Amino acid sequence: MTHPVETAFDRLDTPCLLLDRGRLAANLERMETRAAGLGVALRPHLKTAKSAEVAAAIPSARSHGITVSTVKEAEYFAGRGFADQLYAVATAPGRLGRLAALVRAGTRVRLAADNLAAVEAIAAAGRREGLVFEVLLEIDSGEHRCGLPAEAAELVELGARLAAGPGTRLGGVFTHAGHSYGCRSIGAIRAVAEAERAAVVHARDRLRAAGLPCGIVSVGSTPTATFAAGLEGVTEIRAGVYVFQDLFQVGLGVCRIEDIAATVLTTVIGHQRRHGRVLVDAGGLALSKDRSTAALGPDGDCGYGLVLAADGETLLPGLRVVDAYQEHGVLEGRDGIDFERLPIGTRLRILPNHACMTCSAFDRYHLVDGMQPGAVWPRIHEWV
Amino acid sequence: MTHPVETAFDRLDTPCLLLDRGRLAANLERMETRAAGLGVALRPHLKTAKSAEVAAAIPSARSHGITVSTVKEAEYFAGRGFADQLYAVATAPGRLGRLAALVRAGTRVRLAADNLAAVEAIAAAGRREGLVFEVLLEIDSGEHRCGLPAEAAELVELGARLAAGPGTRLGGVFTHAGHSYGCRSIGAIRAVAEAERAAVVHARDRLRAAGLPCGIVSVGSTPTATFAAGLEGVTEIRAGVYVFQDLFQVGLGVCRIEDIAATVLTTVIGHQRRHGRVLVDAGGLALSKDRSTAALGPDGDCGYGLVLAADGETLLPGLRVVDAYQEHGVLEGRDGIDFERLPIGTRLRILPNHACMTCSAFDRYHLVDGMQPGAVWPRIHEWV
Repeated sequence: MTHPVETAFDRLDTPCLLLDRGRLAANLERMETRAAGLGVALRPHLKTAKSAEVAAAIPSARSHGITVSTVKEAEYFAGRGFADQLYAVATAPGRLGRLAALVRAGTRVRLAADNLAAVEAIAAAGRREGLVFEVLLEIDSGEHRCGLPAEAAELVELGARLAAGPGTRLGGVFTHAGHSYGCRSIGAIRAVAEAERAAVVHARDRLRAAGLPCGIVSVGSTPTATFAAGLEGVTEIRAGVYVFQDLFQVGLGVCRIEDIAATVLTTVIGHQRRHGRVLVDAGGLALSKDRSTAALGPDGDCGYGLVLAADGETLLPGLRVVDAYQEHGVLEGRDGIDFERLPIGTRLRILPNHACMTCSAFDRYHLVDGMQPGAVWPRIHEWV
Repeated sequence: MTHPVETAFDRLDTPCLLLDRGRLAANLERMETRAAGLGVALRPHLKTAKSAEVAAAIPSARSHGITVSTVKEAEYFAGRGFADQLYAVATAPGRLGRLAALVRAGTRVRLAADNLAAVEAIAAAGRREGLVFEVLLEIDSGEHRCGLPAEAAELVELGARLAAGPGTRLGGVFTHAGHSYGCRSIGAIRAVAEAERAAVVHARDRLRAAGLPCGIVSVGSTPTATFAAGLEGVTEIRAGVYVFQDLFQVGLGVCRIEDIAATVLTTVIGHQRRHGRVLVDAGGLALSKDRSTAALGPDGDCGYGLVLAADGETLLPGLRVVDAYQEHGVLEGRDGIDFERLPIGTRLRILPNHACMTCSAFDRYHLVDGMQPGAVWPRIHEWV
């Protein structure tokens, strides 16, 4: 019987989340350099990492500011010294009390709005709480998820309402070109990046023409931040998944497989030799049910993830997670499986389709430096 | 401007997980009655609920025993008095130390195995720890995920190895007919249930013919438990999702929409009138990226969930969650959306595709009794 090779990971129970320190550092450095080259600030979106230790490793997070997606993230990062924030998701009115407490305690947390009801709710809360909420107008630059078009009649009306107060201040405009995820060429991503830039700059120009302030002009998604040809008029980029990268970003051409910093450590728990399958203990909870790479077509479809040896370097060619039950992951190989090379107990690493979703199953990162496990970095979870 | 109706839920921050006490009680009662009618014990699978309070509401969980899917669940429920357990996922060898500690402390936690390497690892750990692990052989009754066929030559060999010890004892056989989820009629589910029964009874007969003990003969999935015509020779059924039910179970014909007990409370945070969309604050993290209902075809496909009014009773017809970004859910209506009825701030409930996946995003259940929020029940998360 073949026995699994013992590694320094054997003391870690699986499934668990590994974070490669070298890859993380390289990813962070690359985006800092990119932003500097574009002449814009970087406001990293920490919804991917949800970790103060990751944030502390990002120079721009302290020198410029951060982006968050929930009030819990805002509170958590505020408590760890990240006092300049953009909460880039439209605010449920019931959440304004918690946000007011943050503002009162000295965190500059900017809110998002794209309609009059939201603006009125924020203004009412500001007056009630005796403070001023700084609000950015969200622009739809083509994704059509949220935001209003740069040419919308109500843009100036909303800007004027925010600028007039009381209870509010107009901080600027922002957009997210999430439709860059639908691109299938770098040229197409570059075109979306230009549409993203043009939309917020046009919105800014309209506000300024009406005599309104527009300090922040913010764009960002990891693909557009990576490939934008230029960002004239933009003050900052927001990107999040770049810190870890993932298989979908590989499929878009944003990074290489060897840039992916966050992986799920798993253990082989079964063989189905009759059906050419290996079972691992990372299933749908550990990997998420995200199937984003399915949109990349047969060549780009990674199932629920691709498979690395425990060293984090060696891709096991042709192997994919083809099914993800709650606690069972099913591996199949394009050309069958060599069961003798994957005995029960073997540790493997799964590369995630979508880092934001996969990391969310875990409460901590196990830092790794090559084969050497290191520090444990906690990450937050849930909304309250 | 239309304002949202105020409800007793307004003090709950969203997204959060609601659990309808009456529906839960009815679901639990129905399966207890079902098991009694079939003349078998019920060993509920608590991987769905991961909550001692839910377990305590299940009569069979205390009188007979429970099923778990992780060592953390085993430890958690053992600490709350659930001392008769089946850990129904193949055990990674590195996890046997934690399991030994449970056995030593008096929990009867039975392990699963389907191959010689796993049996040898369990036996070695039993000898090393100076105790006896009770092991059930896992049978593949047609799903081909794990287990060995009832007619496999090595079945008796593995049984004999377990029965001989030292370090192990043969506790019986079990199977999970997960392929019942692929059925598209009740007749087909009934046929899978019979194949599930026949497989374990055949395995039992082969073990007994070799003079080996086979106390437990365990089957179960919510669909097969619901529709099995008879379970002669079976000693117990395991089912899990029945406690909450979900849209996939509705699609299979297992339950009605009004039986679904766990829902995600969410808030309307935006309108995209130009594109016929309403934004809510339950996205891919809160709902999971599970798209199991896509397999039910256009009529059964619920997107990422269907939508109830906050009362938990009124289905908003034609409305679905068509997209799920990390913190944004996108609602579209088959016949458009009446935005005036869904003002910013409106509370809604989302019915999940797959309760096990959706609940996993949350650390607690907010019990509800009609419109009245009640107790908070914690649930566990993660693996360690």
